[in-house]
Order: sequence, then C-alpha cells, then structure tokens
Amino acid sequence: MPRPPADLDRRATTRTEVDRWQTALTSIAPNSILIRGYPVDEMMGRLSFADAVYLLLMGELPTPAIGRMLNAILVSSLDHGVTPPSTLAARNVATSGAPLKDSVASGILAFGPHHGGDIESCMRFLDAALTIMRAGASIDEAANRAVLDYLSEGQAPPGFGHRFHTRDPRASRLFQLALELELEGEHVRMIRAVERELAAREATLERSLPVNVDGAIAAISADLGFDYDLGNAIFLISRLPGLIAHAHEERARQAPMRQIDPKDHDYDGSGPRRLPGGPGINQR
Amino acid sequence: MPRPPADLDRRATTRTEVDRWQTALTSIAPNSILIRGYPVDEMMGRLSFADAVYLLLMGELPTPAIGRMLNAILVSSLDHGVTPPSTLAARNVATSGAPLKDSVASGILAFGPHHGGDIESCMRFLDAALTIMRAGASIDEAANRAVLDYLSEGQAPPGFGHRFHTRDPRASRLFQLALELELEGEHVRMIRAVERELAAREATLERSLPVNVDGAIAAISADLGFDYDLGNAIFLISRLPGLIAHAHEERARQAPMRQIDPKDHDYDGSGPRRLPGGPGINQR
Amino acid sequence: MPRPPADLDRRATTRTEVDRWQTALTSIAPNSILIRGYPVDEMMGRLSFADAVYLLLMGELPTPAIGRMLNAILVSSLDHGVTPPSTLAARNVATSGAPLKDSVASGILAFGPHHGGDIESCMRFLDAALTIMRAGASIDEAANRAVLDYLSEGQAPPGFGHRFHTRDPRASRLFQLALELELEGEHVRMIRAVERELAAREATLERSLPVNVDGAIAAISADLGFDYDLGNAIFLISRLPGLIAHAHEERARQAPMRQIDPKDHDYDGSGPRRLPGGPGINQR
Amino acid sequence: MPRPPADLDRRATTRTEVDRWQTALTSIAPNSILIRGYPVDEMMGRLSFADAVYLLLMGELPTPAIGRMLNAILVSSLDHGVTPPSTLAARNVATSGAPLKDSVASGILAFGPHHGGDIESCMRFLDAALTIMRAGASIDEAANRAVLDYLSEGQAPPGFGHRFHTRDPRASRLFQLALELELEGEHVRMIRAVERELAAREATLERSLPVNVDGAIAAISADLGFDYDLGNAIFLISRLPGLIAHAHEERARQAPMRQIDPKDHDYDGSGPRRLPGGPGINQR
Repeated sequence: MPRPPADLDRRATTRTEVDRWQTALTSIAPNSILIRGYPVDEMMGRLSFADAVYLLLMGELPTPAIGRMLNAILVSSLDHGVTPPSTLAARNVATSGAPLKDSVASGILAFGPHHGGDIESCMRFLDAALTIMRAGASIDEAANRAVLDYLSEGQAPPGFGHRFHTRDPRASRLFQLALELELEGEHVRMIRAVERELAAREATLERSLPVNVDGAIAAISADLGFDYDLGNAIFLISRLPGLIAHAHEERARQAPMRQIDPKDHDYDGSGPRRLPGGPGINQR
Repeated sequence: MPRPPADLDRRATTRTEVDRWQTALTSIAPNSILIRGYPVDEMMGRLSFADAVYLLLMGELPTPAIGRMLNAILVSSLDHGVTPPSTLAARNVATSGAPLKDSVASGILAFGPHHGGDIESCMRFLDAALTIMRAGASIDEAANRAVLDYLSEGQAPPGFGHRFHTRDPRASRLFQLALELELEGEHVRMIRAVERELAAREATLERSLPVNVDGAIAAISADLGFDYDLGNAIFLISRLPGLIAHAHEERARQAPMRQIDPKDHDYDGSGPRRLPGGPGINQR
Repeated sequence: MPRPPADLDRRATTRTEVDRWQTALTSIAPNSILIRGYPVDEMMGRLSFADAVYLLLMGELPTPAIGRMLNAILVSSLDHGVTPPSTLAARNVATSGAPLKDSVASGILAFGPHHGGDIESCMRFLDAALTIMRAGASIDEAANRAVLDYLSEGQAPPGFGHRFHTRDPRASRLFQLALELELEGEHVRMIRAVERELAAREATLERSLPVNVDGAIAAISADLGFDYDLGNAIFLISRLPGLIAHAHEERARQAPMRQIDPKDHDYDGSGPRRLPGGPGINQR
Repeated sequence: MPRPPADLDRRATTRTEVDRWQTALTSIAPNSILIRGYPVDEMMGRLSFADAVYLLLMGELPTPAIGRMLNAILVSSLDHGVTPPSTLAARNVATSGAPLKDSVASGILAFGPHHGGDIESCMRFLDAALTIMRAGASIDEAANRAVLDYLSEGQAPPGFGHRFHTRDPRASRLFQLALELELEGEHVRMIRAVERELAAREATLERSLPVNVDGAIAAISADLGFDYDLGNAIFLISRLPGLIAHAHEERARQAPMRQIDPKDHDYDGSGPRRLPGGPGINQR
C-alpha cells in the first residue's frame, strides 16, 4: 500500500505547536461553560437572548441601549409571510416529509444576494459613500455620487426599494429607535442622506425607492460595529423562527407532496390586534 | 408534444377554492406586516426577541414569566466550544471559502438524533412515563418503569448523561428558574423523578447519568406546551449564533483549506469574569 | 482560564493507536490516487462513471451486465420535470441569486420519506416479505401478507402508486433490462408477486397501484446487494443532474425573486424524438 | 383582516399568460417522460449515465468521443480520501446520526471557491487569456500576461498547484484523452501554454505550480461548450458518490458523536491492483 504523504502521516512524528489552533469564543471544562469568559449559567435569566448573542459575536456585553436595539432588529425580520423564496424552499422540503431541520437549512440556503444578502451589500455601499465624504465631499454630495454609480446602471442601491412596501414600516421603526436610544452614527446619517437623494429623484426615476428593512439593519449594524458578514448573520438569526414556523405549519396543516403555489394562499389567523398596555408598555 | 396531465394544465380551467391553502402566521399588505395579528413595527422595541419567537410559534403573547424562561432557555445552548459535530461541520465548510450561510446550514444539518435531536426524544419519553402514571402508577413507579425500558437495552434515557459534564450547569439553572418563575409542570416533576431513579441506580450502573441541558429544555418546553418538533427547533434557534460565531472566527482567524483537528485547539479569549452587578442584576 | 477536560488536552499526552481510525475507500499519496486499490487515472477512459460508482460503493468492479444495469438505473431518475418538491426547492433557492451548489444542496434535502426515500422503505418491505417466505410461506402467500399490513392501514406499500403515471415506463424498462441481463433475483421476484397481488385487488381497492420507479430501483438494487441507505443514495446520484439543470435554467431564463407556481409552466423544449439507430444501438 | 396586495390576490383576477413560465428540459405526461424530447425509457440501457447527463445539460446527444470524455471527467474526481473539507463536513454530519442525504448536502456546501469552485474561476481565467490573444497577442504572450496578473499578487492562477500532488495524475490523463479523442480546443491549448509559462518560472517562483484536475476539467469543459456554472456542476456530479461513500462508511464503521481528526486515519482497504485486461480493455 502506498505510503501517505509526510503531512498526513502522524505516527512517526510528535505533535508540535504548529498543529494547534486558537479560538476565543467559548471555553469548556467539566461542569463549566464560559462564553467570552462569562459562565453561561450566570448569563441565563439575567441576559436576554439578544444580549447574549451580542456578547458571543462582539466579545463584550452590550449597553442596555444596544441590547434594546438588537432585540428590535431581531424582531423586525422575524417573518414576512409565505412568499419569500426562503419560506417556499423550506415548505417544499417539508412537504417531502423531511425533518424540520432540513427545511430550515434549505430556507437558509435561499438567503442569496437578492434576499437578505442585501444587508452586506448595503454596509459596503454606505462605507464607500463615507469614504467619498472623508475625501472632502459633503454628506449630500457623497450620497449623490454613490447613488449615481447604481442609477447609471439602472439599478437601485442595496437597501432601497421593496416588492410590496412603498414605505417599509420596519425601517421607519428601526430608525426611530436608533434615534431614541441615541445610537445613530455616520452610517445611519449617510443612509438618510441617500434616502433624501432618491426621494428628490423620484419624479425622474418614475419610481419610488424607499429605504427597506435591509437598509435600516445595514446602517444600524454598521454603526454598532458589526462586520459585513455578521450583518447578514443578524438577518439569519432574525428570520430563523419564521422558517421554523412555516415548516412546522406545513407539516401540521397540509397534505404531503402537494404542489405549493405561493399565490394561492389565504390568511386564516388572528385578526388585527394591539399589544396590551399601548405604546407605553415597558420593554422586557 | 405530449399534452400535460389534466392536473398540470391550468389554461382550460379557472381557479377554484380547492387550489387555495391557508396560513395563520403572518399577513402581509402594502406597508403592513401583522404577525399573529400584531403589527411587527409595534412589537419592535416592546417585545424581546424571545417574546416575539414565542408569539410566532405559539400564537399568543407569553406571560412575563414565560418570556424570561424562554430567554434563559435560548441562552443556555448558545455555544459549546469547537468540538460538537455541528460546529466542526460549519468550520469545515468555512475553510473551503464558502459563504457564512452555507457554513450555518451545514451545521444545522448536523443536529442529528445524537446531537440536539435528544430534546424531541426526551419529550416523547416523558409523555410515555406520564401515560404510565395516568394509568394508575405513582410518579416514582412510572419513572422506574420508563427508565427500565432503556437500561434493559444498555441505553441511557434521552436527556441524561453528557460527554464532558458530570453535572450540567445549564440544566440545574433551567430547573432553578422554572421553580422561581413557577413554571414547573408535570414534565419537570417527571424528569426529576427519573433523575432520582437513575441516581439511586448509580452504583449498579457503575456510571453517573445526570440530566443534561437537552433533558431540561425538553421537560420545560413540554410544560410550556411546545410540540415535539418545536422542542428541537428551540435548540436550533439557541445554537444558531454559535454556528455563526465559529464560521465567522474560522474565516477571520484561520488559513483556508486547513485540516481541522477538534482536539488540537487552545482557548485564547477572555479569562473568567462575572456579570456586572452580581446575581441581583435586573433582567432586561 | 479553566483547564480543558482531560480528553480535550493533547499536550501532555502522546498519540496512541486509540486515536487512529480506518477508511477502506481511497488511499492518497503524492501523485497517486488509488480508489479501492485501482489507480484513478487507469480507471479514467476505461470505466464508465456508473462502473466507477459501483466500484467505490461496493468495493469491487461490476460485471459488464451489472455495469449496464447501473447505467440504466442512474438514467431512469435523471429528471421528472418542474413539479417534484426537490426541484421546486432548488428553483426557489436559485431565484434568490444563491450559487448553484446551494440550490442543489437544498434539492437534496427535499428527498424525504415521500420523495426518493421510498426506495429504502421498499427494500425493507421486500426483505420483510422474503422473511415470511423463508419461514415457509409460498411467495404469493408472503406477498399477500406483506401487502395486507399496509392496505389494512389504508396505505399503499412503498414502491407502488404514482401521482401521474398509471404505468411507470421507467419501472417496466428496468424490469425488462434486469431480465435481459439475467440479474433478476429474489427481490425482483417478490416485487412482481406483490404487483400481481395488488392488480388482483384493483377492483376492491377502487384504485390502481402499479409498481413505480422507486420500487423497481429498490428491488434491483437489493438483488445487486446494495445496503438500504445506498438504495436511496442511488436515487440521489441519478437525480442530481436534474437538480443542476433546473437550477441552471432558473438562473439563465427567469428573473430573480419571482414567485414560482409549479402549475403555471409550459414546456417549450424539443419536440418528441427517437434515439438514432433505433433499439439496436450499442450501449457505450 | 388586511387585504393582501393586488399581486397576491388571485380571486378577483383570471390567470393570464404573464403568469406562465417556460422550461425546456423535461416534459411529463401520464406514462410518458421525455427528456429533451427523448423518452427516458428508450434512453435507459442505450445511453450511459454520462451520455444522459450531457443530453440533459446541453440539449443534444453527445458524440461517442464526447461521451467517453465526459465519463472520464466524471471518474476523475470521484473521491480524494478523507481530508477534503467536503468529506469532513459530510462525516461530521454523519457522526451526529443525521440521515445520509444530510451528510451529502453538507458536503456539497463545502465546495467553496477554494475547493471545486476553482473550475469556474479557471474557465474565466482561460477566456480572459483567449481575449488577450484574439486582440492580437501570440498564445504564449497572452498566457504570460494572464499569469502575471496572478503572480504579481502572489497568487497561483486558478487550476494550478495542489496540496499533495506535484504532478496531478488525473490532469495528465484527461489531457491525454482529449488528445486521443480529438477534443482539444483553444482552452486546452491555452492552459498548456500557461503550464509552460509557469514551468519556465519555476526557479524564480521557488515553487512548482503544475496544472491540477480542476484546471484540466475547466479547459476541457470550456472546449466542450459548458457554461461557467456547469463547470463546477460537473465536479459536483463527479464527487457526489465520494461524499456518499464516506458518509456511509462513517455510519457503518465508526461510533457516533466521535471527534474526527483528519490526520489520524489509516487506510485498511484493498492493496494496489490493476484493471483486468490491461490498457487494451474496451470502454463500456
């Protein structure tokens, strides 16, 4: 039998430091789990899930304001009904009788450039515009130039425009919270400038390009210091329960091996209702 | 060309109600997104992500106690270091240069029967034991009989035993919170009875089989009324950020196309630390 | 920092044989790749892909007859148009702009119990019937009893019945080839007996349950000695190019982020045609 | 309840042609399956799987030479032992007890830019070089300039270099077959020119960059007229049985939930052997 190549054959050699690799996330010991140094059992009951997610991804505890902001961001994209491709991929896997986790994995694979991936593109777009500004242009001039790169190619900038919504209620609410929580930064200021720029061109464009929830998440996440690929990851955490809920409903309410037409559905759930206590209710 | 079969050919026919299907999760209209009837923009900033997840999956708002419990459950399984198969699958996909979402989908596929899937098995195990009890047996007698079914085949009951931990700190903390929040129900009482049963047999078994985090999540989720497959789904939501953090760290800190040995890693992150404010800190 | 558990800490210890694990598939050395002992470069140009697949999965070269049979099995399930859930999952991922491999992975996840998974169930069903026969029953009696287990629960046995086809042309052709190539074995004889059994009951059942392509693949694969899970794997290899072709066509011909209705498609490809040379053409 | 947006509400409207979409791959009618116009049952037993794959992807039957070439390409990348990230991802999913198809889907997700994805990059690289040539440069001058773009950034051009092999036996064999079968085209000629270019620089580069199997598949597939993303798809079809074999072996031979170290394996399969009949054997 052929001898394996040197770097595959460990028998003759002893382990050296070069073999070792590092991780800074979680340390495990018998009966001890430390996430970024904090005992997970101490975190339980004292940090919200969103706080713990921030700690794991960013390495430090969030301020109360950042914790509230991240909770709101995660709630914003929880679900968008049956028509997104990710939901339809998950339901088509569910109708084959596959386990729920397979439906969910399939839905995640549908978070392509046109669906969720827009967050990363928008973060890069805003950084490009900010670079123009740092080079001496005013914020409106920078927004104007950044927008032209897309419009000249007949494209909308990432984070703007929506299939259904002419005014995305999630985006407006996220910006309102960023303002209230005093978390607005240069990325939010730039995306508002881009918004004004596009509004001014609405007549010439013969189409409205409002900022959408991806754009709002992109700007706020960038101001919070998230890396580009973590921007997309936030959407992934937010939408996962939606994929689960649709896969679960498909299994529970529909016959297997059906032909799923996204246009032929009716909503038969709870009618419109308000949260108890009205706008004044305390954040838990 | 062959005529498509009748049920594939829509041209000749008009749509009938039989084509339509129902969903009760989310209703979408221009500039309006209602999740279980509540406007998502009203939920943002007022519900924690865990509260919103409960609403989407269960159909109603959680009580404050249930909201705190679910936050703690989601925090409990956030990450378990580099050695779980799901983490290694995600890192092996990341080292190939694939996008982050592909790493995450791959990790989710590794939540097999031996890894996460235990939650559903344990929920079924506890219901089987409760059925024995309802048939007239005492809780200890029912636990005894349910346990024997597994031990007689040389297996541990689902939700008991752990590769590393002789006392799973996450399980203890979850049960403590369920007690404090007065959310203990028959499934928690039954799993504690099973725990006592196994402890009593420790000498004969020559091995300790402590309840693990999967068992605690299974018992508490069952008492909260979650369906079996949603029990696994809760673990999935909880661990997703861990998969994201490992895929992100692999991309950021390691060379591509490396050979990942789960045993050759060192932890180089923050040393042990305590949450600010000590045990008394308020839950956000 | 907490000490990692003993079995995670390799520094203090030296590698022992217990760490090592075995594989019998392929051995790699510099400039040498041996699959089951054969140089892959020697296999290239001299074995068909199907022959090489058989060698890799089964460990030995196929006979010419088995090679032809496996080529035919792999061709049989190459594609089934746009309506299978796996194809729709793949197309929904493609419309999001995700890479082709993500569409394909998503399609594979839709090979659930009701779609492809039938092959394994049918292999188990036929072995159960053969066990009854070996216990002394005649083949028809064994088929009769095995069928009753399903019919008594209002179910069709795995491998029988089809959404569109009353006589599955792929199944007939596979059985014809198994006969010509003298590869018929006890599993094929049993499935034919089950077929007769169900045909005899057609009047009472008020429905026709012809053997389908999954049933034919199951019976022939079992006679060829494939394990249960490899039976499903054969379908997977066969359908993969179909998933690729649909993902590729979706990307090439359709607008992104469209709503895919499986019922609203038209076929605009080549009209019906015959293979050159008629039935006598030589198999390559 | 809110009215769904107009384009979601089908009740009021009747189906129009605008709703319909086209596919040119396969037409399904009761008891009839036509792939690119050919009855699949007529293809079975008369076309090799590789021939049928070519028909499905390219729309027409391959010539005998192209059929042999594609069989060889598909055999070339069948498996590469346990160390590729895709194989390790598949094995890590298998060790969790997940179904075989989940292991396979996970492995496919690991075909990232650094692993398999090189084929598409190399096809684009060769077309760029050919564009330079068509603009008037000699083939060697074009190869020289194309190579410099990569070397100047300290990178190897896609399709060149290998972790283990200094001379990839699969690449040599593929080029030999392309020559024998008279299928060499401008992409093969260009990659040979690039090979010469890199060989000439070996001393200065202080490293050998031989053409690898991805490069050979890229050049030959491009000459056969495959689209860029179908180049990667060919690798995917070729490696799928390898992923299946490793997932199957992991399930059959290893304990669940093990820690998989890619460096600690031994090969215990068949020793080196030759194909029967020597080099003269007829291709089936």
